[in-house]
Amino acid sequence: MLTLYDYLPSQNGWKVRQLLAHLGLPYRSESVAIFDGEGQAADYRRINPTGTVPAIRLDDGRTLAESNAILAFLAEGTAYLPGDAFDRAKVLQWLSFEQERIESTVGALRHWRLTGKLQRRPPELVAMKREAALRALAILDAELEARAFIAGDTYTIADIALYAYAAHAEEAGIALHPFAHFNRWLARVRGQTGHLATTHPYAIDPHSSRELPQAPLRVAASTMEAADAIAGPG
Amino acid sequence: MLTLYDYLPSQNGWKVRQLLAHLGLPYRSESVAIFDGEGQAADYRRINPTGTVPAIRLDDGRTLAESNAILAFLAEGTAYLPGDAFDRAKVLQWLSFEQERIESTVGALRHWRLTGKLQRRPPELVAMKREAALRALAILDAELEARAFIAGDTYTIADIALYAYAAHAEEAGIALHPFAHFNRWLARVRGQTGHLATTHPYAIDPHSSRELPQAPLRVAASTMEAADAIAGPG
Repeated sequence: MLTLYDYLPSQNGWKVRQLLAHLGLPYRSESVAIFDGEGQAADYRRINPTGTVPAIRLDDGRTLAESNAILAFLAEGTAYLPGDAFDRAKVLQWLSFEQERIESTVGALRHWRLTGKLQRRPPELVAMKREAALRALAILDAELEARAFIAGDTYTIADIALYAYAAHAEEAGIALHPFAHFNRWLARVRGQTGHLATTHPYAIDPHSSRELPQAPLRVAASTMEAADAIAGPG
Repeated sequence: MLTLYDYLPSQNGWKVRQLLAHLGLPYRSESVAIFDGEGQAADYRRINPTGTVPAIRLDDGRTLAESNAILAFLAEGTAYLPGDAFDRAKVLQWLSFEQERIESTVGALRHWRLTGKLQRRPPELVAMKREAALRALAILDAELEARAFIAGDTYTIADIALYAYAAHAEEAGIALHPFAHFNRWLARVRGQTGHLATTHPYAIDPHSSRELPQAPLRVAASTMEAADAIAGPG
C-alpha cells in the first residue's frame, strides 16, 4: 500500500490527498512534524532531500517527492492527466505556473499570515508577493474566461494544484471578489464528485508559528568559504 | 516548423535551445525583447499569458509555455525523458526542484548581479536567496554523490534544466568549488555530445538593466478594492 508523508495543514499535501480521494486509492498516511524538525531528520531526508511534504513511498520502497511530480505519477492513465502529449504538456504548463506564481505568493502570504510571521518578514518582500499574487490571479481570471478548466475542457491535476492555495487567497489577505471568472471556476472545482473540502488550520500544530527548521549545511567548512565569496564583490 | 519564442540571455531559453540541439530538430527562432516590453504586448500574451520566454508554437498554431512543460513535450519518446512512469516522475521531481530552488535563487541573484539590480533589492531578500541557493547546491551535491545524473543513471531534461542556472552560480556570486560531486556532474553534462556551451550576456540588450515591464492589471478597478483589502487587517 502507498504511503503518503504528509502534514495536515499543508495544501501541497492536500493536492495529493485530493487526487488520491478522486482515484479511490487506499493509502497509509504518515505525519511529518515539519515545524518540529522532523522534515530535516536524516531518515526523512532520505525520502525527500528537501525535507518538505508531501512525498510518497511505493510498496517496493521507491520514493517520490514534489507535489507536481506526485500528482503526475498518480494521475498517469487516468482522466486527471490527458494521454495526448500536447494536452499533457498544457497540464504541466499550469503546474509550473502554480508552483512559481501561486504557491510562492498566495501560499507564502497565507502561511505567514495564519502563523503570525507576516510582521517578521521584510515589508518590501510582502509587498512584492502581494503584487505578484494579484497579477497571477488576474492571469487566471483572464484564462478562465475562455474555458471551463485551466488546461482545457476537463478537470485535471492542474485544477487540483491551482485550487490548493488560490482558493484560500482570502486567508492571505487578498480579496477574491474582483475575479469573476476565477470564482466561477472555483465553484466548478468544488462541484467535482469527491471534492475534498476539508482543510486543516496551522493552529492544530503548536510548533507552526516557528520558522521552518533547516538542516545544517552539509559542506559546513567549505560553505564558509562560499559565504566569504558572496560577501565579497557581490 | 516549430517556432521558439526566445530571449538570448535567458537561461530558461537556453534549456529549450539545448534540447532542440540534442534532438537535431529544426526550428525558427523569434526574439522577444522582454525588457523593452514586448513580452507584455497583447500579441505575445496570447502566446504566453505570463509574458515570459521561452514559449513555442507548433505548425498548427497551438502554443505552449513554461520551460519545464516545453522540455517534457519535446523530449517525449526520446532518450531525454524515460518512458517508465516512475522514472519519468523522478525527472519531474527534479524539474520542480530546479524551478523552486535554483532558478528562483541562483537565477535571480545572477540576473540582479549581471544587470546592476542587486543594490536595488532589499538586503534581507538577497541574503535569503543566497542562503537558499547554498542549501539547494548542498542538496544537489549530496544527491550527485550517489549517481551520475540527477534523476538516475542517464542524462535527461532534468540535468539540462538544472545546468541552465546552477552551472553559472559563480556569476551569482556563489563559489562552486566546495561542491565536489556537483562539479563532477557539471563536467559530465559538459561532456555530452552536442552540449551547447554558448550563453549570451545580458549586456547584448541595452534595456536589460531596466525592471521587467509588467502588464497593467486587467481588473484595474476591482484590484484597487483588492489592494484596500490587503492593506487592511494584514
